[in-house]
Amino acid sequence: MTYHKKYMDRAIELAIENVRSNKGGPFGAVLVKNDLIIAEGVNLVTTTNDPTAHAEICAIRTACAKLSSFQLTECSLYSSCEPCPMCLGALYWARISTLYFAATKENAAAIGFDDSFIYEEITRPIDHRVITTKHSAHDRALEAFRLWSQSSKKTNY
Amino acid sequence: MTYHKKYMDRAIELAIENVRSNKGGPFGAVLVKNDLIIAEGVNLVTTTNDPTAHAEICAIRTACAKLSSFQLTECSLYSSCEPCPMCLGALYWARISTLYFAATKENAAAIGFDDSFIYEEITRPIDHRVITTKHSAHDRALEAFRLWSQSSKKTNY
Repeated sequence: MTYHKKYMDRAIELAIENVRSNKGGPFGAVLVKNDLIIAEGVNLVTTTNDPTAHAEICAIRTACAKLSSFQLTECSLYSSCEPCPMCLGALYWARISTLYFAATKENAAAIGFDDSFIYEEITRPIDHRVITTKHSAHDRALEAFRLWSQSSKKTNY
Repeated sequence: MTYHKKYMDRAIELAIENVRSNKGGPFGAVLVKNDLIIAEGVNLVTTTNDPTAHAEICAIRTACAKLSSFQLTECSLYSSCEPCPMCLGALYWARISTLYFAATKENAAAIGFDDSFIYEEITRPIDHRVITTKHSAHDRALEAFRLWSQSSKKTNY
């Protein structure tokens, strides 16, 4: 899908306005489908006490609610900044087609956001991570997976 | 923080019950603080039309709402399965201390969940990813970041 500067203008405007109004971090995002904005998002982590309320995730949640769908195929996300691993993961789960971003994760790191650090952590073996992480074997660990595989009622995603 | 099997039992029970009740994917998670369960989560992607409603993220959002905080320091997350990159990112943003998981991301991939694929995508250069991804330079890209750095009212996170 073709890049349109007007949508990035809007994502950046949202980011600027979010700092000015003191609602949260300096990030904005816009979701576009069929050349229309279907959802906008800003960072609301501190004002909603939700560490997952990044601009991209807010935009995805709003768009999915609007379309009554858990997938956003044929949608483009315009983000004022390169998404963190959490948001990038959300883009994949939402099956978004195209991502445009303006500032980079290095720019975000320069003003104190941990994105680059989290990118590094995710590639480390689990026993070398800052969050103490342990694979705890359990005799019923795969029971839900077996039930899922056998279920004829399930909705795949 | 010490591992307690009873909490993993509960996370796995939630995962199993979620498939049986047909509410969503085969995943459950429990957040523990001071030896008490403060929140539980199950996968609700398809029933709530929210691609970010993974068990871990639901548990984090519930816990944060309950504690009126956007950080969950000194909390342990017990997850029936190794978190995907989206959820792992959320754990870092929430500042969780310890993560225990039972099934692995390879187990999840074996029943059709894309976790391993997303882990691989995140490490690829942006022009080699399945989601078309472009860094789109913009003359105002850093304006919100400058405002953020200068702001004396901001709440860091």
